[in-house]
Amino acid sequence: MDFDLPLDEARVYRPPLAVPDDLEEFWARTLARIGTAAPTFTRVDSGLVAVETYDVTLAGFDGDPVRAWLHLPASSLRAGPLPGVVQLQGYNGGRGLPHEHVFWALAGYAHLVVDTRGQGSGWTTGATGDPAGSGSSQPGFLTRGVEDPETYYYRRVYADAVAALEVLRGHDLVDPSRVAVAGGSQGGGISTSVAALAPSSVAAVLCDVPFLCDFRRAVAVSPAEPYGELVRYLAAHRDRVEQTFATLSYVDAAVLGRLATAPALWSVALMDLTCPPSTVFAAYNWYGGPKEIEVYEFNDHEGGEAFQQQRQLAWLPTVLGA
Amino acid sequence: MDFDLPLDEARVYRPPLAVPDDLEEFWARTLARIGTAAPTFTRVDSGLVAVETYDVTLAGFDGDPVRAWLHLPASSLRAGPLPGVVQLQGYNGGRGLPHEHVFWALAGYAHLVVDTRGQGSGWTTGATGDPAGSGSSQPGFLTRGVEDPETYYYRRVYADAVAALEVLRGHDLVDPSRVAVAGGSQGGGISTSVAALAPSSVAAVLCDVPFLCDFRRAVAVSPAEPYGELVRYLAAHRDRVEQTFATLSYVDAAVLGRLATAPALWSVALMDLTCPPSTVFAAYNWYGGPKEIEVYEFNDHEGGEAFQQQRQLAWLPTVLGA
Amino acid sequence: MDFDLPLDEARVYRPPLAVPDDLEEFWARTLARIGTAAPTFTRVDSGLVAVETYDVTLAGFDGDPVRAWLHLPASSLRAGPLPGVVQLQGYNGGRGLPHEHVFWALAGYAHLVVDTRGQGSGWTTGATGDPAGSGSSQPGFLTRGVEDPETYYYRRVYADAVAALEVLRGHDLVDPSRVAVAGGSQGGGISTSVAALAPSSVAAVLCDVPFLCDFRRAVAVSPAEPYGELVRYLAAHRDRVEQTFATLSYVDAAVLGRLATAPALWSVALMDLTCPPSTVFAAYNWYGGPKEIEVYEFNDHEGGEAFQQQRQLAWLPTVLGA
Amino acid sequence: MDFDLPLDEARVYRPPLAVPDDLEEFWARTLARIGTAAPTFTRVDSGLVAVETYDVTLAGFDGDPVRAWLHLPASSLRAGPLPGVVQLQGYNGGRGLPHEHVFWALAGYAHLVVDTRGQGSGWTTGATGDPAGSGSSQPGFLTRGVEDPETYYYRRVYADAVAALEVLRGHDLVDPSRVAVAGGSQGGGISTSVAALAPSSVAAVLCDVPFLCDFRRAVAVSPAEPYGELVRYLAAHRDRVEQTFATLSYVDAAVLGRLATAPALWSVALMDLTCPPSTVFAAYNWYGGPKEIEVYEFNDHEGGEAFQQQRQLAWLPTVLGA
Amino acid sequence: MDFDLPLDEARVYRPPLAVPDDLEEFWARTLARIGTAAPTFTRVDSGLVAVETYDVTLAGFDGDPVRAWLHLPASSLRAGPLPGVVQLQGYNGGRGLPHEHVFWALAGYAHLVVDTRGQGSGWTTGATGDPAGSGSSQPGFLTRGVEDPETYYYRRVYADAVAALEVLRGHDLVDPSRVAVAGGSQGGGISTSVAALAPSSVAAVLCDVPFLCDFRRAVAVSPAEPYGELVRYLAAHRDRVEQTFATLSYVDAAVLGRLATAPALWSVALMDLTCPPSTVFAAYNWYGGPKEIEVYEFNDHEGGEAFQQQRQLAWLPTVLGA
Amino acid sequence: MDFDLPLDEARVYRPPLAVPDDLEEFWARTLARIGTAAPTFTRVDSGLVAVETYDVTLAGFDGDPVRAWLHLPASSLRAGPLPGVVQLQGYNGGRGLPHEHVFWALAGYAHLVVDTRGQGSGWTTGATGDPAGSGSSQPGFLTRGVEDPETYYYRRVYADAVAALEVLRGHDLVDPSRVAVAGGSQGGGISTSVAALAPSSVAAVLCDVPFLCDFRRAVAVSPAEPYGELVRYLAAHRDRVEQTFATLSYVDAAVLGRLATAPALWSVALMDLTCPPSTVFAAYNWYGGPKEIEVYEFNDHEGGEAFQQQRQLAWLPTVLGA
Repeated sequence: MDFDLPLDEARVYRPPLAVPDDLEEFWARTLARIGTAAPTFTRVDSGLVAVETYDVTLAGFDGDPVRAWLHLPASSLRAGPLPGVVQLQGYNGGRGLPHEHVFWALAGYAHLVVDTRGQGSGWTTGATGDPAGSGSSQPGFLTRGVEDPETYYYRRVYADAVAALEVLRGHDLVDPSRVAVAGGSQGGGISTSVAALAPSSVAAVLCDVPFLCDFRRAVAVSPAEPYGELVRYLAAHRDRVEQTFATLSYVDAAVLGRLATAPALWSVALMDLTCPPSTVFAAYNWYGGPKEIEVYEFNDHEGGEAFQQQRQLAWLPTVLGA
Repeated sequence: MDFDLPLDEARVYRPPLAVPDDLEEFWARTLARIGTAAPTFTRVDSGLVAVETYDVTLAGFDGDPVRAWLHLPASSLRAGPLPGVVQLQGYNGGRGLPHEHVFWALAGYAHLVVDTRGQGSGWTTGATGDPAGSGSSQPGFLTRGVEDPETYYYRRVYADAVAALEVLRGHDLVDPSRVAVAGGSQGGGISTSVAALAPSSVAAVLCDVPFLCDFRRAVAVSPAEPYGELVRYLAAHRDRVEQTFATLSYVDAAVLGRLATAPALWSVALMDLTCPPSTVFAAYNWYGGPKEIEVYEFNDHEGGEAFQQQRQLAWLPTVLGA
Repeated sequence: MDFDLPLDEARVYRPPLAVPDDLEEFWARTLARIGTAAPTFTRVDSGLVAVETYDVTLAGFDGDPVRAWLHLPASSLRAGPLPGVVQLQGYNGGRGLPHEHVFWALAGYAHLVVDTRGQGSGWTTGATGDPAGSGSSQPGFLTRGVEDPETYYYRRVYADAVAALEVLRGHDLVDPSRVAVAGGSQGGGISTSVAALAPSSVAAVLCDVPFLCDFRRAVAVSPAEPYGELVRYLAAHRDRVEQTFATLSYVDAAVLGRLATAPALWSVALMDLTCPPSTVFAAYNWYGGPKEIEVYEFNDHEGGEAFQQQRQLAWLPTVLGA
Repeated sequence: MDFDLPLDEARVYRPPLAVPDDLEEFWARTLARIGTAAPTFTRVDSGLVAVETYDVTLAGFDGDPVRAWLHLPASSLRAGPLPGVVQLQGYNGGRGLPHEHVFWALAGYAHLVVDTRGQGSGWTTGATGDPAGSGSSQPGFLTRGVEDPETYYYRRVYADAVAALEVLRGHDLVDPSRVAVAGGSQGGGISTSVAALAPSSVAAVLCDVPFLCDFRRAVAVSPAEPYGELVRYLAAHRDRVEQTFATLSYVDAAVLGRLATAPALWSVALMDLTCPPSTVFAAYNWYGGPKEIEVYEFNDHEGGEAFQQQRQLAWLPTVLGA
Repeated sequence: MDFDLPLDEARVYRPPLAVPDDLEEFWARTLARIGTAAPTFTRVDSGLVAVETYDVTLAGFDGDPVRAWLHLPASSLRAGPLPGVVQLQGYNGGRGLPHEHVFWALAGYAHLVVDTRGQGSGWTTGATGDPAGSGSSQPGFLTRGVEDPETYYYRRVYADAVAALEVLRGHDLVDPSRVAVAGGSQGGGISTSVAALAPSSVAAVLCDVPFLCDFRRAVAVSPAEPYGELVRYLAAHRDRVEQTFATLSYVDAAVLGRLATAPALWSVALMDLTCPPSTVFAAYNWYGGPKEIEVYEFNDHEGGEAFQQQRQLAWLPTVLGA
Repeated sequence: MDFDLPLDEARVYRPPLAVPDDLEEFWARTLARIGTAAPTFTRVDSGLVAVETYDVTLAGFDGDPVRAWLHLPASSLRAGPLPGVVQLQGYNGGRGLPHEHVFWALAGYAHLVVDTRGQGSGWTTGATGDPAGSGSSQPGFLTRGVEDPETYYYRRVYADAVAALEVLRGHDLVDPSRVAVAGGSQGGGISTSVAALAPSSVAAVLCDVPFLCDFRRAVAVSPAEPYGELVRYLAAHRDRVEQTFATLSYVDAAVLGRLATAPALWSVALMDLTCPPSTVFAAYNWYGGPKEIEVYEFNDHEGGEAFQQQRQLAWLPTVLGA
């Protein structure tokens, strides 16, 4: 079980980072390619009486359509501008069915559940494709276009997430100064990166057992998927090791998170084989804003689950205000 | 993957049942031992604004305390007597944290989430112990007291569930004629059995991928837990095979379900290694009330998940009425 | 081990096929989209003295560039027009390094080793991307664009293979009437389909343990990858089962192979968990041309390997002529 | 394979212990609850001519009946008061059938093979139930009642073992000053703890690859059952970590063994995934009496087996005397 | 779990056998090569007082030395000529240490525990090598010399076992008319074969979950070792399938057992992946003598263990007489 | 994944070696037993036009016949004396079919592909038996005769390889001063050892991911086969640990390689569970000649494959000369 650093070493693990010289310029260019079409909101009947749900299509990277659900507390439950939560998804999942991911709406937030392009054929379903092709890649999303930061898959994903954030902030019923980004695993990595790419738009971050952190260590330590995609890719393309890590440094949440400023509540699980705890601490320790972290000593990648939700329900109002 | 009957054979699989002569007398005696103490309801703050939650303690078999959550739609969302849903848990789970299992409350129902005694240290937590001990048993709950129907663990569990049903039906805000029992896996087996033991109290059944059905076939076909507990028990106690199946026939949802009369919506998954489809069809085909079944061809024990919930959201009002 | 039909049943297994009404029209439209740019041939030094190797770029579906190696026997070893072999790759592989797949050149054939677009990051490497994106898909290639035959990944792959076939037939040193298509696993499925789509161009087929055959049975029987991609996709998208199989019927080598006319040598392995023997026999029994099959009773997906190569070395001249 | 400390570090591993303030008072109270009913001995025919066997029922914790076999060397093989061995069982086992565990009787000892309450449905069978219930627990025995030392399962088990020891010492044919306790795995942990709880009654200890040692490290290091029960329990009850280890400290053989005084022969296996070697050394290094340990470098939890028995056959007479 | 025939089909499964024309001649020639040197018996101290043990070296096939232990009940426990049991070992085991396998001596029999040449580096140790080399073979013993019955490994093993049988029958303290052969797994297959090769010397057979039966079905059905050795061998030597099964037919316990005449008690386990139940029934149903079989419905290859021993303790005297 | 030393520690890992006092004398005696019969060369038709192949039988240890293929570039491809490569096989493989292992012939070398006695029933087939028997051993080749260096299996294997080397050097078409030894895994270990045993005959070494290095560490670190054979052997023969390692020190490529003088190109894979990287570096760091090593960071035991071949194609001429 001792597959990673012991907790006391992990707590202070803050590895040197390979920060690309043009990191900020690259992302400025990237965000400039977000589409400008206005989002559409179509009311749907989810079967729930406590939540009011809209099917959202918004313009992501290169204007590609990105699908989301907007869940609002039922009208009788709300008063005044709502705080908001943008929820990013774990690897292979999607926004799901209309009644599926409504947690933050139940707690009184405007809750935007955003698809991850191309994904959504796994534990929950999605409705958003990725029109961009890629070079030779491993099955999975982690190596698509990885031969160059310009073509890398997560470039588009992060830009989509920033676009979604601004869509929620721009909604009539939402207080744009009180919007959080949230997610677990891949959703945690995206949340942290969004907080770095749009620091003035993010009021809080909820980042659980994040993926996409400290890739070089992750591929050495994690025996599980999806980091295994990278291992297999590099096992095949033995001549592309440095080039691949160079691309990855543009999307590494440990690299990007330094630029974030919003207060953040993280969680990490010490038996997490999918997102090894040291890689989570690597990103946490480099994170630029005020921060707290919950440590779940006996959990694998499921992390804190309902216990962490309880913690978040209590913490979020303390940073977003009433 | 072809570990069980093909679908067309499974659809008509209705095995001969070993119905104990004293089955109904046994259960009449059992239900007579349900405690008579009044339930207690204590308001708790779950952190959600859409749901009103109470911590419930009710008297189960032999009066043993059983814990539950009562979730009501927030007061602004309700009008008139509420229809109700009693939710029984899957193996190893519990009622969870106060904000965790609120689905039916969001849909407008009084939702009672009931612990399974002794369980609740797995995928969700519980707060209800089982004061009864047992003879020599395998790790797990399936062989506790299995040497005799009088001492068998599930005797107590089924009685607890009937007690919980009556508690919800007796609540001031609930319409006692419009209460359903619901559950997946172990919760499905309990639900069906409760519908058989208290037919006049159950208005509908939602039974997903049920456990506790057609034990003799289940232990031969399922390569997975928890039926494996029985396999290992019988592998050790080579001299107790017939005695063990005799006890199990008292709690077999295929045996009991014949006595149910409420309309029921079932689901089955054809790649379900935990609760093999033939065993589900065995119980479904013997079920005594009006019934429909959704077949999920490519799913393992997770079954229909959100897709089945969507189906249930539409179906339940058609049998409970407005 | 008895996971599939016994040999005597498999030998006569010829399932009813769901042949799309517009199958031939669809493929005519598809092949019409093959690019018209002339192929390029660049001599490379593979380090081998026995083989003369060229790096080939040819125009595939929609004119997308497809990479290949052309291996010729060293000039001192050849005389007169050469018979040819187009080799298609197994799933996840690519054309490899210049010295890697030279088998048929050693035997005196012009040997064209063709990439599979997007693949080539696995057991051998490739250099060909897939510029087309896709909708929500499972990690892997099998569900990319599967929501519609028009967008399905294998539409493009088959068209690329037909294009490659014509490139080899058009080479100055090659006798266009004596060109075979060959491959194992995915390469077997593609070879058979190419023989169906371009029957007048294919003089022989070498088809080993083919993939992409009799999908409906394959996903029910195979416990392995890559058919598992389809299982997981359908487990998520529970509402897309029929639509998905409708798409797959356009590329099913059992459906297409009926249209082939070239003599073929197949092989099948009875313990093949990846491409179950019954699915191979389904395609073999429907295959339209003269045919023979080698049965390897104790092999998994590796099949006959060098033993089958030996068989092929002897058989191919008997159909291609001297 | 290097999942634990290297041997040289393990040999000196003597971790700080969390000794409860009221440890000795707790156990004094516990042993005071051992039943006072006289044991019963019923002669049975085991089918063996070399051993004389009695079915024993003795009063354990709270007077609960505990079953055992007493095996004596056949009468023609014995002369004078016999030295004795009380054998405690490995996890999930029981006293077995009458002819099953007779080793020490063959060597000339009065051999008492004692059930572990509730267990005995695994590799050997038992006949002793546990009348005490428990709170919410994981499948298995390790978390039953673990919420409080008063209710913890192993409190009762250890008291039963002390009771059994005194029963053997009180038998007419036995020399009460020459009785050893023995066991492997769980039986090793119990043996060591009994030697601590009844130091004046134990003349020697045979402790092989013991379980129930140094829990905090064990759950971090062991990837196997049954320590996994604790991992899963704590993964669910994320809020009970400290409370759980506080309970465990009352039964930790490393904590208790400090109080033992009898000479002891231990064994440890360096590839033991079930009872990791460092946890064995933790208890060994804290053990209070004279001691020796055999190290099996290449064994998993089976340890030294017949080789260690041979060692024990030679060693035991040297400490018990002729 | 349903990996083999259901019980009712297995009970009557009596496959056609490929009996070699020269089977009896082959074995006559083979037994004629048993060495004629007198066995040696050296008293050893096993540490047990109930058993008197001798280290035996006897002359096996080609006179090669074969090691065994002879265990006698202690002298005070015996009177008159002793009945005997020759115990053959399971695959990979050996005679063990002197105190290890003494069961039948405890029950009053002269017990000869015989090594299997070359084996004995597994679950128990042996001291007997195999001086004969072999051709290309898989790791393991099952394919050594399998290219020809003359050189096949089990030819030597069976001859050794016959030699050992005659050694025990020739011992002064043994009644040669009351000697049984016994064994589980490989030991069961050898026992049955010995009963066929020396029918007038064998008074009873104890055959548990036998290996070496109905090879053609076994390799198709068993997913486990050691039959897997044959699968891998034939997967490599794709051209030696018929030749290999021709050799195996000389040692198949289903083929040989037809020639046996002694009363036999068998056992079979329905979940036995190592020696699938149908292959056991194949041999049982062809067995030539009077016979009974115990069926263990829920056991894997461990079979009936102590329960079967209890059955054997009762049965053996009924056929050997007092 | 971090199952072995990190790269920077592995690079300098040069463990103390247990060099037997009589190492060189032992091997001198051993090589003196190589047979003196002249090799035979029989032309075979492999079906390839680029290679000229001969079936070779040569005299190995004690004159035992050893089979090999001699592959020459087709006559039109060669001029003058050829440089040569002797290729030794990986564990369980053999020389294969005549067309199977021709790589170095394609590159212009006389290529001798040598069987490993007794092996050749695995991934490729062999035709060479081992006439020598052995004592009690584990399934596999690693423990055959390991009780004494005189009888140990690899003694014979290394001698065979030296014999093969001299056969190739003695061939009319070969330049004896320009012959390399090559192999991966077991073939790497043998190659290095041959370079040590016949330093004046070896002009270069190609050693990939070698097996048979630094046994003491290998058995502690590798969780895989075939080192597992040793683990299981020592787990059984708990009393033979030192004796076994004493034997192994005679064939350890780390011990022997010190005596080599030829330039060598090695490769190592950092995720190699079969031949852990530290054990490869142990041998590499002790290797006596000029040396280079390629490190494959993300590969398991497949190592560099075609990439390493490419490297070797370039490197070998630099040391053998034109």
